[in-house]
Amino acid sequence: MENEKAVVIFSGGQDSMTCLAWALKKFKEVETITFNYNQRHKIEIQCAKKFCIDNNIKHFVYDIDVLKWNKNALTDGDIDVKETDTVPTTFVPYRNAHFLLIASTYAKSIGANHLITGVCQTDFSGYFDCRNVFIKSFEKMINEADDYKLKIHTPLMWLNKCETVKLMQSLKKIEWYAYTHTCYEGNRPACGKCPACKLRLKGFDEAKIKDPIEYEHNN
Amino acid sequence: MENEKAVVIFSGGQDSMTCLAWALKKFKEVETITFNYNQRHKIEIQCAKKFCIDNNIKHFVYDIDVLKWNKNALTDGDIDVKETDTVPTTFVPYRNAHFLLIASTYAKSIGANHLITGVCQTDFSGYFDCRNVFIKSFEKMINEADDYKLKIHTPLMWLNKCETVKLMQSLKKIEWYAYTHTCYEGNRPACGKCPACKLRLKGFDEAKIKDPIEYEHNN
Repeated sequence: MENEKAVVIFSGGQDSMTCLAWALKKFKEVETITFNYNQRHKIEIQCAKKFCIDNNIKHFVYDIDVLKWNKNALTDGDIDVKETDTVPTTFVPYRNAHFLLIASTYAKSIGANHLITGVCQTDFSGYFDCRNVFIKSFEKMINEADDYKLKIHTPLMWLNKCETVKLMQSLKKIEWYAYTHTCYEGNRPACGKCPACKLRLKGFDEAKIKDPIEYEHNN
Repeated sequence: MENEKAVVIFSGGQDSMTCLAWALKKFKEVETITFNYNQRHKIEIQCAKKFCIDNNIKHFVYDIDVLKWNKNALTDGDIDVKETDTVPTTFVPYRNAHFLLIASTYAKSIGANHLITGVCQTDFSGYFDCRNVFIKSFEKMINEADDYKLKIHTPLMWLNKCETVKLMQSLKKIEWYAYTHTCYEGNRPACGKCPACKLRLKGFDEAKIKDPIEYEHNN
């Protein structure tokens, strides 16, 4: 695999940054793709862009408009970000399917046979399309759609946030997290209070590693 | 199912018109979606539009730009339409995956649990994404991506063109074919010579039914 080309779905967040560091170790050539779907934390796209420019990594930003068709708190400013007993308001229906399909189409066009995504079943939180069974069924579907072979890699699937931080430490790239954005409120410094910030902080805390980004409050 | 809502992927061609006639018999409420992917036979979109206006059917046209990323004779005017020993030049990588995913996202947004597509394994001609195994794997994937139930119907999957024409006859809508476009060259009257025209004409011929569209040459 070391001589092959890969595409990383790169949101500009902590998980996809870890995936990018992982892919850069594993593959000869790595490109990144970021999706603008009018997410409230659109600032993550700027983070992704800055990182790729500073590190000379090929980066492609693609606009998707269909994800707002199904109401959710990430594309609709009128819906609050909150955890519920069932599906969180931040669940964007079919988001990962769209990301993976567009990334697959792009991968084939540049001759890459590998896709990397930072989805993770461990912090599943009701996001159906972060489960391993979804990724496996997507991989089967995309390989039935064409005779072009695509492998989907999910290096974080079974890690918790603490283990993800430790994986990044083992890759010696903790400092790259300074570029990442996680806060769902789109705040920078991060709010430290939304579900995404809380999950991130817990991971660093458990790994006993300092998060290099700034927070509004002293967490 | 009779009380439910459905979305038909409606290209404006003969097969999807047959599917639409089929769906209108089966479901209480039917909407249509047509994709503009800069296909050389773009005239089919106008055919679809005209039919839906004349027959008071809800119709949505969606533009896709990613299908041109992988070179093919339908989105690239410099590549000739021709049959080959392997994959035809008219194969558009991942086309049905994109159509089905966008249609699924739309279906959920309007509360429809049924999608209808005119893909057909019988005249497979090297189009991987027309095979039943692809449709089944897409259906599994989309149902793993969300807890929203979607059923994909392929009423033409095992029919040849002659049987499709006969199905339309049994639905008493042969006259609707006058609105349809098939010719890959985008000609109207149709060229009668491209692979798509030839397949269409053969079907009518075998069914002993007159094709209501006009052809350039007397076929």
